Formats: sequence, structure tokens, C-alpha cells
Amino acid sequence: MSYVTAVYTVHGSTDKLEKKAEGIALGLTIGSWTDLPLLEQKQLKRHKGRVVSVEALEENKGLIKINYPAANFSSDLPAILTTVFGKLSLDGKIKLTDLHFSEELKSVFPGPGFGIEGIRQRLNKYDRPLLMSIFKSVIGKDLNYFSGQLRDQALGGIDIVKDDEILFDNPLTPFAKRIVKAKEVLDAVYNETGHRTLYAVNLSGRTYDLKDKAKRARELGADLLLFNVFAYGLDVQQSLREDQEIGLPIMAHPAVSGALTSSPHYGFSHQLLLGKLLRYAGADLSLFPSPYGSVALERETAVGIANELTTADSQFKTSFPVPSAGIHPGLTPLLYRDFGTDSVINAGGGVHGHTLGAVGGGIAFNQAIKAAVEGIPLETAALEHQELQEAIKLWGSSEVSV
Amino acid sequence: MSYVTAVYTVHGSTDKLEKKAEGIALGLTIGSWTDLPLLEQKQLKRHKGRVVSVEALEENKGLIKINYPAANFSSDLPAILTTVFGKLSLDGKIKLTDLHFSEELKSVFPGPGFGIEGIRQRLNKYDRPLLMSIFKSVIGKDLNYFSGQLRDQALGGIDIVKDDEILFDNPLTPFAKRIVKAKEVLDAVYNETGHRTLYAVNLSGRTYDLKDKAKRARELGADLLLFNVFAYGLDVQQSLREDQEIGLPIMAHPAVSGALTSSPHYGFSHQLLLGKLLRYAGADLSLFPSPYGSVALERETAVGIANELTTADSQFKTSFPVPSAGIHPGLTPLLYRDFGTDSVINAGGGVHGHTLGAVGGGIAFNQAIKAAVEGIPLETAALEHQELQEAIKLWGSSEVSV
Repeated sequence: MSYVTAVYTVHGSTDKLEKKAEGIALGLTIGSWTDLPLLEQKQLKRHKGRVVSVEALEENKGLIKINYPAANFSSDLPAILTTVFGKLSLDGKIKLTDLHFSEELKSVFPGPGFGIEGIRQRLNKYDRPLLMSIFKSVIGKDLNYFSGQLRDQALGGIDIVKDDEILFDNPLTPFAKRIVKAKEVLDAVYNETGHRTLYAVNLSGRTYDLKDKAKRARELGADLLLFNVFAYGLDVQQSLREDQEIGLPIMAHPAVSGALTSSPHYGFSHQLLLGKLLRYAGADLSLFPSPYGSVALERETAVGIANELTTADSQFKTSFPVPSAGIHPGLTPLLYRDFGTDSVINAGGGVHGHTLGAVGGGIAFNQAIKAAVEGIPLETAALEHQELQEAIKLWGSSEVSV
Repeated sequence: MSYVTAVYTVHGSTDKLEKKAEGIALGLTIGSWTDLPLLEQKQLKRHKGRVVSVEALEENKGLIKINYPAANFSSDLPAILTTVFGKLSLDGKIKLTDLHFSEELKSVFPGPGFGIEGIRQRLNKYDRPLLMSIFKSVIGKDLNYFSGQLRDQALGGIDIVKDDEILFDNPLTPFAKRIVKAKEVLDAVYNETGHRTLYAVNLSGRTYDLKDKAKRARELGADLLLFNVFAYGLDVQQSLREDQEIGLPIMAHPAVSGALTSSPHYGFSHQLLLGKLLRYAGADLSLFPSPYGSVALERETAVGIANELTTADSQFKTSFPVPSAGIHPGLTPLLYRDFGTDSVINAGGGVHGHTLGAVGGGIAFNQAIKAAVEGIPLETAALEHQELQEAIKLWGSSEVSV
């Protein structure tokens, strides 16, 4: 029988954990059980929630697993989330840590359309982390400024350049014109240097306009869509992924997700929301705070997200983990150790703030990535690479003992 | 100039509150300021975020107000939320407490289509709180069961009966058939008793199917739409409200919202999310935990939500506050004191669990409401009303000193 099993962490007295679990399993499905006539029990059995396990973890902390039959909900994330964490999200210190989908239920989800392999194919780049950077301070600037900045980043050898997530459709740099302009700039750099850079345009606006806008983006030759999925909804992202007329890779941005994940007592685990659910709903790349930058997650948490995105799955392609925020070239060895080959190293200030500009910043990052992949200490590599040396002078470096 | 001003509560050292505020105001708009050439400052001035005020509230708690020019975002909630709380939601202990919209920016939002007045007109019921109840344990049951339960609630004099939010489209009680059946049952009760009950059907499924489903509901004669807005997105609700072909009142359910509001340190304030933003985005009714039931909010918080929904506004109709969860007739005096005439008293078990069934439960609630409105102590009213007496015997009662 198809199902979803929810894993909850509860805080507070663990005395009555089993009773609490039973209350949830019934309350979120058929309401009552033991007081029902046998005939009715028989009829309702396939709808009854079931306590899988209950575990006291430590003082005042417990783990509850409950199995919900898929017969109770339609096969969409809004129905599933409302079932397993609708009313329950309001009911004291309880956090939704994980969801296990039966293979049958999983099969209704699309997973990434391109995945790590698909993105690598577009770039013809294998066996090393990709390098991404972010436009800086484009608000209030025009298309010329946008083009110049994009060109510098491409010349620095960046693989993917993404819009700032707070750059929306606007008169100075309209959505459609950004796509066309970016294509022109990036094609020119490709013709000059042979390096292919992709541009991720921020898909924004009203929910019911997004599909048409995304199709227009596709027609105009867009490479990727950046999407503030948590300002919309996971189900919206899933539809963008499923629409064959769109057919563009999706880069999920974690904007607003902190409201759902940051508390240790409430909301969703990072792994579930930024890892598993984004992947199920079709994200090809997922951005999240790295353990090292200005806005940091604990290492275990960040690696946990990456594992959800990259672990082998019989039904879904893998998605690129993009640990972000406050990244500079000196952090590359740590990021490579933690997230490995199949990850994207992503920087904003760490590219643009380089003494030699975004070109130098991009080059420094590429030098750092090459060194990391080859197992050469950063300081050693810097002896032969001026850009990397400059970056380390500016921001420091980290070494990883092998 | 059009703008939104965000109010944040920050936890942690208040030493560098001004510096933090400046960092946010710039970081979420133009990036930098003091190091820009004068000409560029002039060009960017209309895009610059501005610190309105900074206040140390108590030890380790501060209040920051920042003004964001509307020139920076498109006029939709996803863009606004991404601007004011996108990256910032991930950046430590910070909670978005309130948003003030300029009148110009407010004018792009629809507000409730019907509002308190419109709902009252449909029921021809004024000058007292409305009475609502919820189907109980319909999962796994068929349309006959559904009809019987609906009829009992209507015969009890309930004004609005809502679907359980975890009842989705399903083979036993499909969406369209529920609407048609409910109409039949409720018209029959109206013809028999003269009492008009409205039925709120749960609008569920994939985001991009919702509009068509809602239009179909309208064609079939639906009264109201129940909507799990936080499993979708505020912007989706706004579109349902704006679509003239739908034209049905919207009852917003708080399912999943606890993940966004429960923490004192992270996420959104209840007042903002379940009050102001739901109203701006067109909810005619907003459900939230009352201060008294099984899942409770603090009184100040619950009343704060209600105030956001009902306070006079030059542009928007008012929305009905529906304090919910664990409500029984004995709590009516407290609810009436806190939420007044323009509110909905909403119960599940407090109606169905009555010794005389849902009919008796509904009657008991109506007796309690009448007493509260007339200023008669509940125990006094119970002397003349058997149903109310039974309810008080079952669940107790509360009195309010006048």
C-alpha cells in the first residue's frame, strides 16, 4: 500500500510519547479507533495512521515516526504537507524532520529534469566542482552595467552566473532583455575564449504568470531559471519542472526558507526542505548556506542537505548542492572536502571583491578548485598563481589534512 | 514614493544594532553606499533601503524598522517577501514582526472580496458572532455519511460548516459531488426550518488546477472555498480572490503555518501572517488557534491577529477572525469578550461530542452565543436550556465579569 512516513522530533516531556504519537496518528487520519465497532474498523483500516516507532532521544526530546496511507490524500505536496504537518505544525514544539515516500508515491514526483549530469553536459565539464557567481548590486543599474558585469564573470571562467534573487522584473533590466543580452554577451565570450558560461535568470512575478514567463524565457534562449521557490510553493516549482514546453533547468533559491527551517523546535529540517523535497519537486540545483561563510549552517546540516540531493535513487536524477554565502577562494579546500566533486562552489563578494575584479576573482577560484581536485595545498598552488595569491592575501585560506 | 517598511525583532547582542540595521538596509537593496561616487549615489538614491529606527527593547532583544522602496520589487507578495525576508530569514535570530505598506503599494492588493459584511449578507445574520463547525472523521466515509453529518450540523443551527482541511479530493466523497450533495442537504434544511447554512468546500490539488476547480465549484453552486493557503502560497490565494469567474468567499486555513510562526526567534509574527497578509491577499475568513482550546495561542497574539483582520482600512474590507481548536460552548463568554460581535465561533468536537449529537451541540452553542450577546451569565442561561446545560456538564463553563 502506498504511504508516506513522517519523522518528527518533539521537545518536552517524553513520558507520554506513545500516547502523543497515537493521538497524532489517529487525529490526522480517521479521528478515532478503539471505540469504533468492528465493522467500521474493518472499513477504515486502510485509512488509519499507524505509529511506526517512538523513541526517547535524550531528556525532553523524542522521535516519533508515523505512517500515513496515501489513500488519505491526493498525490500532491500541498495535500501531503497538510496531512502530515498541517494542524500539527501549530501544536507545540514539534519539528518535521523527514518524510519517507513509498516507491509508488514517489513515482508521481518528477525529480530533476536535468540533474547533475544534464548540467555538466550543457557545460561539457566533468570531474570537478562547478563554479558559480552572483551579480552584485544590479538594482538601479541598466543593461550596460549588467552586461559588463556578466562579461567579467564569464571571462573569469565562471560556469554559471546567477541573478541576485532580489532582482525582479524591472524597467532598467527587464526579464526578457536580460536573457537576450546575456546570451549575446556569453556567446561573444565563448567565441573569444572557448569558455561556456550559463546564465540563470530570476523567474519572478505572480504565480499564475510564471509558466508563460518561463516559456518565453525558453523561446528567448534562456539557460536556467533561478526560482525563489519558498516565496511561492514547492508545488509551483514542480509544475515548472513538469511543463515540457518550459524544459529548463531550475535553480532553487532558499530565500524565505529560513522562516521554515531555522528553529530547532519548529518547522522543517533543512535536509528535508532544501534537500529531499526540492529534489523530488524538480530542482536541478539547490542553494543553501555553507558551513563556512557569513550566513552559516552547521557542517552536519549542510552536508545532510547535500546527501539528500546527491544520494543514488532508483527514480530521481541527482541535484547539485550549492553551499553558499560568504565564500572566497580560500574556503575551496573545505568545500571540496565536505561536498566533493558533484557540487557547485558559489560566490558573490569572493569573486567581485578581488583586487583584480571579477575576472581575477573567477580565475582565483578556478585555480583553487584545480588545486583542491589535484590534492595540492592552496598555499603551494598560490606560489604559481598570482590571482589565488591575491585572494588569500585578502580573505585568508584553509588547508585540509588529507 | 511607494514603499514597504519592515519591522524586525532581533535577538542577540543589541550593541551593534544600528550597524546591523544599516547592513540590512543596504544589503537587501543596492549593496553599498558610502564608498560610492556622488553621481552614483544620486542615481541610486531612489533604490536605497533606509533605516527608519532602531530600538533596544530589553536585554538581547531589539527592534529594527527598515524602509524598502517599491521601485526595487514588482508588486507581488513573492517579490516583497523575498526582498524583506529572503536571505535575511536565514541570517540568525531575526523575526519579521510587521510590514507597513504605503497606500500606493497597498492598492495593488485586492483585500477580501466579500468580507464580514458580505458573509453576513449571505446569511442574513447580523449583530452577533457567527457559528461554524467542522466535519468530523469523514476520511474513509461515503457521501451518505457526509450528508447525514452535514444535515445534523445544519439542524443544530450552524451558520457555516467547513470541510476538514485534511479531506482532499477522493473517490468516496469527490469534490464536485460534495458541493452538489451539500447544496441539496442544506436547501432541504432551509426549506424545513428557514435556517440557512453555508458549506465551505476544501479546494485542493495541484496549484495550476485550482482556478479551474474553483470555477467549477462556483458553477456547481458552492458557497465558500476552504483553502490551505500556507501549503500553497499567499499569492495563489490572491489570484483565487482576484479571478472574477471564481467570485467565491475564501476561508483561509492555518495548516502548515505553525512552521512559519511558532518560534519566538524566527519566521513571521502571527499577526502579520494570519492577520494582515491573509487579509491583503483576499481571505474573507481566517482561522487561527484561540487562546483557550487544545492548541492555544497567547491571548494577546490571538487578539492581535483579529485586530489586523477587523481594523478599519481605507482600502480593504474586514475579514472574519475565526479563533479555533478545542472550542466548546462554555468558552463562548471568553471568545465573545476577546473577539466581539464580528467573529466566528468555531468548533469540532464541541459540536459533535455533545450528548445529543451535532444537533444538540449546535443548539447549545447558539444558546451560549445568545446569552453572551445579551450579557446573561452562561450558568443562568443554562437553567432554561437543556442543551447548554448538557454541554456545561460535559466540558465546563467560563464566566466573564462585566
